[in-house]
Amino acid sequence: MAITRRKVSVIGGGFTGATTALMVAQKELGDVVLVDVPDNEGPTKGKALDMLESTPVNGSDVNVTGTSDYADTAGSDIVVITAGIARKPGMSRDDLINTNAKIMKSVTKEIVKHSPECIIVVLTNPADAMTYAVYKESGFPKNRVIGQSGVLDTARFRTFVAQETGISVEDIQGFVLGGHGDDMVPLIRYSNAGGVPLTKLISQERIDAIIERTRKGGGEIVQLLGNGSAYYAPAAALTEMVEAILKDKKRVLPSIAYLEGEYGYDDLYLGVPTILGGNGLEKIIELELTEEEQNQLNTSADSVRDVMKALPND
Amino acid sequence: MAITRRKVSVIGGGFTGATTALMVAQKELGDVVLVDVPDNEGPTKGKALDMLESTPVNGSDVNVTGTSDYADTAGSDIVVITAGIARKPGMSRDDLINTNAKIMKSVTKEIVKHSPECIIVVLTNPADAMTYAVYKESGFPKNRVIGQSGVLDTARFRTFVAQETGISVEDIQGFVLGGHGDDMVPLIRYSNAGGVPLTKLISQERIDAIIERTRKGGGEIVQLLGNGSAYYAPAAALTEMVEAILKDKKRVLPSIAYLEGEYGYDDLYLGVPTILGGNGLEKIIELELTEEEQNQLNTSADSVRDVMKALPND
Amino acid sequence: MAITRRKVSVIGGGFTGATTALMVAQKELGDVVLVDVPDNEGPTKGKALDMLESTPVNGSDVNVTGTSDYADTAGSDIVVITAGIARKPGMSRDDLINTNAKIMKSVTKEIVKHSPECIIVVLTNPADAMTYAVYKESGFPKNRVIGQSGVLDTARFRTFVAQETGISVEDIQGFVLGGHGDDMVPLIRYSNAGGVPLTKLISQERIDAIIERTRKGGGEIVQLLGNGSAYYAPAAALTEMVEAILKDKKRVLPSIAYLEGEYGYDDLYLGVPTILGGNGLEKIIELELTEEEQNQLNTSADSVRDVMKALPND
Amino acid sequence: MAITRRKVSVIGGGFTGATTALMVAQKELGDVVLVDVPDNEGPTKGKALDMLESTPVNGSDVNVTGTSDYADTAGSDIVVITAGIARKPGMSRDDLINTNAKIMKSVTKEIVKHSPECIIVVLTNPADAMTYAVYKESGFPKNRVIGQSGVLDTARFRTFVAQETGISVEDIQGFVLGGHGDDMVPLIRYSNAGGVPLTKLISQERIDAIIERTRKGGGEIVQLLGNGSAYYAPAAALTEMVEAILKDKKRVLPSIAYLEGEYGYDDLYLGVPTILGGNGLEKIIELELTEEEQNQLNTSADSVRDVMKALPND
Repeated sequence: MAITRRKVSVIGGGFTGATTALMVAQKELGDVVLVDVPDNEGPTKGKALDMLESTPVNGSDVNVTGTSDYADTAGSDIVVITAGIARKPGMSRDDLINTNAKIMKSVTKEIVKHSPECIIVVLTNPADAMTYAVYKESGFPKNRVIGQSGVLDTARFRTFVAQETGISVEDIQGFVLGGHGDDMVPLIRYSNAGGVPLTKLISQERIDAIIERTRKGGGEIVQLLGNGSAYYAPAAALTEMVEAILKDKKRVLPSIAYLEGEYGYDDLYLGVPTILGGNGLEKIIELELTEEEQNQLNTSADSVRDVMKALPND
Repeated sequence: MAITRRKVSVIGGGFTGATTALMVAQKELGDVVLVDVPDNEGPTKGKALDMLESTPVNGSDVNVTGTSDYADTAGSDIVVITAGIARKPGMSRDDLINTNAKIMKSVTKEIVKHSPECIIVVLTNPADAMTYAVYKESGFPKNRVIGQSGVLDTARFRTFVAQETGISVEDIQGFVLGGHGDDMVPLIRYSNAGGVPLTKLISQERIDAIIERTRKGGGEIVQLLGNGSAYYAPAAALTEMVEAILKDKKRVLPSIAYLEGEYGYDDLYLGVPTILGGNGLEKIIELELTEEEQNQLNTSADSVRDVMKALPND
Repeated sequence: MAITRRKVSVIGGGFTGATTALMVAQKELGDVVLVDVPDNEGPTKGKALDMLESTPVNGSDVNVTGTSDYADTAGSDIVVITAGIARKPGMSRDDLINTNAKIMKSVTKEIVKHSPECIIVVLTNPADAMTYAVYKESGFPKNRVIGQSGVLDTARFRTFVAQETGISVEDIQGFVLGGHGDDMVPLIRYSNAGGVPLTKLISQERIDAIIERTRKGGGEIVQLLGNGSAYYAPAAALTEMVEAILKDKKRVLPSIAYLEGEYGYDDLYLGVPTILGGNGLEKIIELELTEEEQNQLNTSADSVRDVMKALPND
Repeated sequence: MAITRRKVSVIGGGFTGATTALMVAQKELGDVVLVDVPDNEGPTKGKALDMLESTPVNGSDVNVTGTSDYADTAGSDIVVITAGIARKPGMSRDDLINTNAKIMKSVTKEIVKHSPECIIVVLTNPADAMTYAVYKESGFPKNRVIGQSGVLDTARFRTFVAQETGISVEDIQGFVLGGHGDDMVPLIRYSNAGGVPLTKLISQERIDAIIERTRKGGGEIVQLLGNGSAYYAPAAALTEMVEAILKDKKRVLPSIAYLEGEYGYDDLYLGVPTILGGNGLEKIIELELTEEEQNQLNTSADSVRDVMKALPND
């Protein structure tokens, strides 16, 4: 009956996966296992060891392990999936979906085998469809398969509002529904700075510009980096979800959730406001939408269904 | 040109003052000087030394000093005033105001003498009038004399909403104007949980009950303690204001601010939404109020003016 | 199979108990239950509520509850005992021991009944004998009943060395064996600043003065306070032990441990270097002592045995 | 006289520089400016923006800026230099030194021009010689030009000892002198776990193996990564030095310091135990060495002098 440390496995040892592992370790949330394919075992072990060697400086008593063997993930409380390929020039969208869906399938098999009680958080793009694929493959109840997109979108939105207003990021609240990027449905009436509605602080023109910049937020980083995509903010977003669950915090965070009637959709994973706690996704918060918002959300849902058509059948 | 630690002095070595000193030290915000009258020098030094002896465990590299000599506060960045008496049975309200106003006056003289560039944060009750007294005595510009009441009121409000909804305290936002306690003007339309308006989550009846409990929040603790009044949450509120200023965070926090026309008042200290940063109270956020809200705020302002009449002239 | 928060109960709602509850809550280590006798239920609930009302400011998602009903402690991971009386003028030492031993007995019965798997940490003085009393009453294995004295003593020692050398408290390490106060056996050869032996940095004369001040460290605070004894540093010490166990950190910390042959003693609780982790006291580190050190430790052990003679038989 | 945030500039936007910027921002130590050459401006801005977009999640109120314009670094409190090339296959050691020394020279000119009062911390390899080059070019007093090597070496050493003993990294202390890697001089007699000498806990054979692994610690990561070198632990080491200075902590940390007679060397930068605080490198701690240790340190110093011969004259 000893008290044991929590355990978090991160699948995918690229920049986002590795940075997520780092942040989970820095917060001493639990032992961390970073997993990648056998071909990447060296770099995965290297990153994990390098992180571990930073723990004495931070006073973090956690293990950080790099591996290509899923047996090392056994008994994880949470597994975060960042594995997958990015779309390359000349690759069709359907090819991307197909490839990542296959990766989700094989990864999920391993996760379920070694951590049958875990909660899974999915980042891999396109996240709505990939979370659905993981859900189907896992056989887990819906509260234990969750996707990330809205925490990152709101983090970007909050950053831009802070820049615009000069107000602390701590006090700025954003609120989004629907898909990532262009399909994002911002609810400005629920966004505020220290409780003050944004419309009292910023002109509608500037709010529109900030929404547009948020929609293109991933692309802005891609363009600046020249090679690769964002990983610091995505990793921070994942870590916040992990912390909310591991500490049973009951945070109100936007998640990609399995809908069974909520917001008028069924058998669909879509970004909605949720409560995250020790049971994973504990509740979906349903809000009345304006007609315009519902229309935007419908577009977002259509877009997800469209992507899902490209999922491989089997 | 060496980099030096920030310095925070706390006037009043009672429970609230001492707990504020502890929290400032725990957060390693700067060196802390706890000041009380010569008759209390022993206990003040004792508490400070006891706190200092906890710093190795926390890894906090700050000094904590207890003293009755204001020379030890010299060069403070921030001075927090918690000194003052509580109303005793049989004491008239005017006697209380008179006594505390005299304490403000003598304390302020010493603060100004030793830290002419500091920012002063006042907790002593009745806080609106006492902040006014400190402002007048100090000759400081208005941005450098700030009173506390709303951070504590919203902390209590958020606690009760969290209990009601089961949602994380991190995600609950409250919004109050006006005076402490009965004179508090809650703006429920600006209060939310994770952006979601409270009215979507809680019945109006329960919201009313929570407002009422918040108004009486100080009294609830007094009654439970039997002897004395709250100090943990007040100290946390003061520490949040200190941190916002020392780290130039530009937090949106309710403060007791000197009004010159804002909200229709002049030459009055009253609780309003403000931005706290390196310049102290950097901005008052003006909001349009409903007629009912403005009426409540007028009552609150009248109440402050009434108290101020009891301030000694000299 | 949901992830649940850890739970820590603190028996005794006086200054040390309450401050321990505060620090555990601030670190978000788990939900906290503060327990005192029915006569003190009001103040206990008041302190707990006041603390809870500070959690929104700290972003701590934990419950803090005050109670006189041990049923509220059910399922605690750790229970900290701070209950007990202080010696009053005119009270014989044996009366003190008798009274506190009875309190340990009744408290332990309740703890065991409601949290049969918990780990108990004892602060109540005289801590060696009281930990023994709790151990016997609980029927728990020895790794799950631990006393505090050395973490506090080394915290004080480190504070004084930091003051003497101007070096960060983070880098100063102290090392003590044996009892609290006069019976403390400091191992200066194992004490250092950033690895550098203290004897390279401070004269023997000053080291002796620091040891003497540490021995009398509790008395120094008592004398300054005039009324009451230290609670900030003791609470920080208890919290460090709780954190080491709850996070399974495997910290090397001095604890009052049940000895079965170690250091030459049997069936005795005495302060020795230990490893604290998820199993509680996981290991006693045995060191070779010099003759002088062993003599001092023998004196310390004799002193504990002497106190234990005053324990009530039943 | 407003309170302003501290400012830290990091020169070199590669993995180590970027990770250092992240960690400084995470700890809210001050605003961060990440600088790289104009050709890398896009990725530098991209990384900085990505980091900034993580601050709402962490509640960090700091700016993070990417730039190729040193004007943006103006008024920095601390500037960290990570710029420089790594040795490529076929490149002679002297070519490496020459190239990096030229980079140090041009970078230092810009730093001094825009932040004439700053403290500089150098990571670029070979760090002893590069710190010397920066010192000479800057014209700064010696306390304001400091090199990093020992914090990283001890972090690795502590990690390996923690793995060997199962003891918390918090309680393990390492102690090194001299150069990085092969030239490292470990002082095992000053290394301990919770004060307990390592030799009481680990066999000499295993200690030797750990020392050897630490010496090759950088190479171990290089080999695992396959492409590139360690950056998490180096960045954590730099951040610890930055924090010690910005918070005036008076930490005892090994630094590459300018020697004027200490340990028998003159006009040389070499790794020695130091105290870091608000004045930068405030003190060198001189220890008596055994003959063997002094011999090893001589070898280390010879090696540094040898490298310095390859520094370009001008």
